[in-house]
Amino acid sequence: MSSSSKFLEPDYLPRKHDGWQARWFNIIFHHEQGPSKTFDLALIVAILLSVTVVILDSEPGLHASYASLFYVIEWGFTLLFTAEYAMRMYLVRQPLRYAKSFFGIIDLLSILPTYLSLLFVGSQYLLIVRVLRVLRVFRILKLVEYSSEAGILIGSLLRSRRKIMVFIYAVLTVVLIFGAVMFLIEGPDAGFTSIPIGMYWAIVTMATVGYGDIVPVTPIGRFLTSILVLIGYSIIAVPTGIYTAELASTLRPKRRSVRCVECGLIDHEADSWHCRRCGRGLPE
Amino acid sequence: MSSSSKFLEPDYLPRKHDGWQARWFNIIFHHEQGPSKTFDLALIVAILLSVTVVILDSEPGLHASYASLFYVIEWGFTLLFTAEYAMRMYLVRQPLRYAKSFFGIIDLLSILPTYLSLLFVGSQYLLIVRVLRVLRVFRILKLVEYSSEAGILIGSLLRSRRKIMVFIYAVLTVVLIFGAVMFLIEGPDAGFTSIPIGMYWAIVTMATVGYGDIVPVTPIGRFLTSILVLIGYSIIAVPTGIYTAELASTLRPKRRSVRCVECGLIDHEADSWHCRRCGRGLPE
Amino acid sequence: MSSSSKFLEPDYLPRKHDGWQARWFNIIFHHEQGPSKTFDLALIVAILLSVTVVILDSEPGLHASYASLFYVIEWGFTLLFTAEYAMRMYLVRQPLRYAKSFFGIIDLLSILPTYLSLLFVGSQYLLIVRVLRVLRVFRILKLVEYSSEAGILIGSLLRSRRKIMVFIYAVLTVVLIFGAVMFLIEGPDAGFTSIPIGMYWAIVTMATVGYGDIVPVTPIGRFLTSILVLIGYSIIAVPTGIYTAELASTLRPKRRSVRCVECGLIDHEADSWHCRRCGRGLPE
Amino acid sequence: MSSSSKFLEPDYLPRKHDGWQARWFNIIFHHEQGPSKTFDLALIVAILLSVTVVILDSEPGLHASYASLFYVIEWGFTLLFTAEYAMRMYLVRQPLRYAKSFFGIIDLLSILPTYLSLLFVGSQYLLIVRVLRVLRVFRILKLVEYSSEAGILIGSLLRSRRKIMVFIYAVLTVVLIFGAVMFLIEGPDAGFTSIPIGMYWAIVTMATVGYGDIVPVTPIGRFLTSILVLIGYSIIAVPTGIYTAELASTLRPKRRSVRCVECGLIDHEADSWHCRRCGRGLPE
Repeated sequence: MSSSSKFLEPDYLPRKHDGWQARWFNIIFHHEQGPSKTFDLALIVAILLSVTVVILDSEPGLHASYASLFYVIEWGFTLLFTAEYAMRMYLVRQPLRYAKSFFGIIDLLSILPTYLSLLFVGSQYLLIVRVLRVLRVFRILKLVEYSSEAGILIGSLLRSRRKIMVFIYAVLTVVLIFGAVMFLIEGPDAGFTSIPIGMYWAIVTMATVGYGDIVPVTPIGRFLTSILVLIGYSIIAVPTGIYTAELASTLRPKRRSVRCVECGLIDHEADSWHCRRCGRGLPE
Repeated sequence: MSSSSKFLEPDYLPRKHDGWQARWFNIIFHHEQGPSKTFDLALIVAILLSVTVVILDSEPGLHASYASLFYVIEWGFTLLFTAEYAMRMYLVRQPLRYAKSFFGIIDLLSILPTYLSLLFVGSQYLLIVRVLRVLRVFRILKLVEYSSEAGILIGSLLRSRRKIMVFIYAVLTVVLIFGAVMFLIEGPDAGFTSIPIGMYWAIVTMATVGYGDIVPVTPIGRFLTSILVLIGYSIIAVPTGIYTAELASTLRPKRRSVRCVECGLIDHEADSWHCRRCGRGLPE
Repeated sequence: MSSSSKFLEPDYLPRKHDGWQARWFNIIFHHEQGPSKTFDLALIVAILLSVTVVILDSEPGLHASYASLFYVIEWGFTLLFTAEYAMRMYLVRQPLRYAKSFFGIIDLLSILPTYLSLLFVGSQYLLIVRVLRVLRVFRILKLVEYSSEAGILIGSLLRSRRKIMVFIYAVLTVVLIFGAVMFLIEGPDAGFTSIPIGMYWAIVTMATVGYGDIVPVTPIGRFLTSILVLIGYSIIAVPTGIYTAELASTLRPKRRSVRCVECGLIDHEADSWHCRRCGRGLPE
Repeated sequence: MSSSSKFLEPDYLPRKHDGWQARWFNIIFHHEQGPSKTFDLALIVAILLSVTVVILDSEPGLHASYASLFYVIEWGFTLLFTAEYAMRMYLVRQPLRYAKSFFGIIDLLSILPTYLSLLFVGSQYLLIVRVLRVLRVFRILKLVEYSSEAGILIGSLLRSRRKIMVFIYAVLTVVLIFGAVMFLIEGPDAGFTSIPIGMYWAIVTMATVGYGDIVPVTPIGRFLTSILVLIGYSIIAVPTGIYTAELASTLRPKRRSVRCVECGLIDHEADSWHCRRCGRGLPE
């Protein structure tokens, strides 16, 4: 499995190597064998159900009639997930390492909101975070493939993160300048009531979203808008180019560059033992 | 023809190898010779006409005056296509294999709606699926090129489907979270009457469609919108990157597949003289 | 110059090889030397001016005051371009070949509207076509580079035209189906008054334009819209992938695949005389 | 560091090699050691603060209460930056070279507006240009990586600028034609009050922004819009393709640049042992 998907879930060691702890550790932390697979399935079903409940609860009509029911179910799931979280913390040898891992944080975030909702009203909607837990779903169907696919995608994103940051920064600069200029040109009458609003408009325009809630009305404003649109339309190429180039080089078959002592061919495939041209064995 | 375009239409065997069945099998299932080419042409014209009728019939003005005429024409085409479908089922040696093939399903779907319309009003509009049958059109003009082009495109899509799925899942997760958060922040006044509506808004925004029927009005809401827009604007690179890399590797010069008599390795680079694993010379 | 830019303007032969015809042929059809360069410059200035006049004339305010002036100028340019067109037809040895060339058609189109405007009012706005003539501008600044750049872009587009067509057809199919389904689901109240309108909406949505003049209002309609948006958002990768892969292979340095009799290296650069590994001369 | 990032900031020589001038030259123009790093940090903080002030000042509410305070702060920063600019001009050996460099121009632009605001009201908002100065931020965190990343991105953009220009020109031509045609078809009732407005609409549509402030209402207008949208949707591939291909070739493994003692060919492939032109062995 690629390092990137390892980053999603490191290999954990059980606290104990025998007894029920070991057995449960396998069930909860492994995904291949029967029982642990069943556990994963049940977990994902529970997650999807709890997310569905949150969504349904937000429908005014349904909330009116079933609010209390949803409330009970919600607490049920929360206690369930709390128990699971506690189990994981107890069964793994390095609880902190788990707690700080990607899934560890998600697991915690997915139970906190309900408890917070006792203090702050409305925060239970944040339970929606739970959907992130469904990332575990990829484990079930064709574990390796999917995880490695995700690994490749995330890996390429991580490797190109600096280029993307440079790009985002450039975009924000353009947004700031155009937001300020349009605020000067169009003014409050057209809805550009301040530079932040102008920046909001510039982002929405440059990314070609174009709500139309704020639009230029003056000729010069429309001209500048056209410029901004063309800029956005042209540089949308940049992140795509960055990512595609990165991904392509990732997918390209790895090469092994060792010089063949016979014919001097340097560029070999990673799994070559012999030179593909002269057949001479390659130095390790 | 590439395997992907084979997937579109497998090679069928005639039920009988002589007599009118064989002749008609060639006419209907082959596309090269004169008569079968004429048949394809007639078929496509019929398909386009029937689709046009459905479209025209939907125009209130035209429907008012020609409803009954359209109705008759529609039934004519349906009976025609039904006859064709029956013929195909009868003439081919493996009717089930045809029925389950891509075109087999399309052919069936394209006649069902009319019959359904006897039971459910309005369903005749579903006849629009008939347009799918026009996929057959590619056969006529420059068969091989077009089919193989389509084959390459579809093949690349199929090979990258898992990555795309991972991507879609990630998008939906972001959509769910932003939809819920915006529902909390903006509330019903801005049109965010529920989480599903919020999700609809998030998808429309993230994909840079931006209808403008629902827009944020609060400063914090507009700030989050900007974030979402930038996310969507940046990760639009991902599917493009996936697909482009896949397609590029498809178009990359082929490998030389010759079996090494020593170790049996088959997959070699185009310019290999010796097996890269065992060093044995490769047969020309 | 690449064949694609040749396609833009073939090499012409003069009708006569001496006398004023030859001289003027060089001035009009060539672009390197002083006088012909001046001619091109003057031509482009005239084109830009005439286009500007058309644009200004469309401004209600300006039209009110200067209509007659614009009218005169317009006729002046038209007579000028007509004379140029006649000259070209007269000076070139193969008038028909010129008339059917890309620029030949443009040149004709750019003078017709004025004459048509004597018959049909309003058609003079079609003079806007003249802007196409400015394609000649690339000749002036750094002729070779720009023409070849354009040649590369156009060449890649031409080579990938079949794939693009396959893609457009697929898009239109999806558009037709969604247009019909939305017409059934949303109906006239939401603005979906007919299938064609639905198709217009589907195109505007799928291409992420999203005017917002027609939007779904029913939950199921919004759900389908989300699907359509995600489809459009995902397959926007396809044309990009097609084009990028095509362009990349075009820009990749050409290779010469000849087997070195000494070391057997096959993959050489196009301009190699000797094997880069063993130094042995390569067979022609 | 790549030449492109050098283009962002050339290497300067100090006016004097000792004394306080030399010391301050290092502090201001270098970025590695402690004091100069502190200077950069302080500078960036000051820049961000001054930009923030401009933004806050544009908020009507805040402006009402703190206008005078903002005014004072603004002048403070301006004097500070003016001093810095003067110092740079004084300390560097080639003041003009600095003044004409990318950052030199930015630095000047970032102080001018305040002085201009004494003459023209409102121009102080142009101070927003100052954000460009934050480009210096990349120096601080992981200097080399970020600068070179930016260098790669900018370099690729510069190399593909001609192709992009050709593309922009093609887009503008389409925009002009569609703008004029839609002005004829839709007319003022639909908001197409002139060709320039029509062009604004065409750009907004073609780039898939789609505000919806101007939309076609006639069937033929909507049909043409669909065409335009499909064109824009298809050719969005072009800039991406250009940029991606350029970037990919940039990221492709470097060549080996060693001068052949025989024929003087410099540009060889990384694994070359012999000159590909004259066959002479290459020096290690």
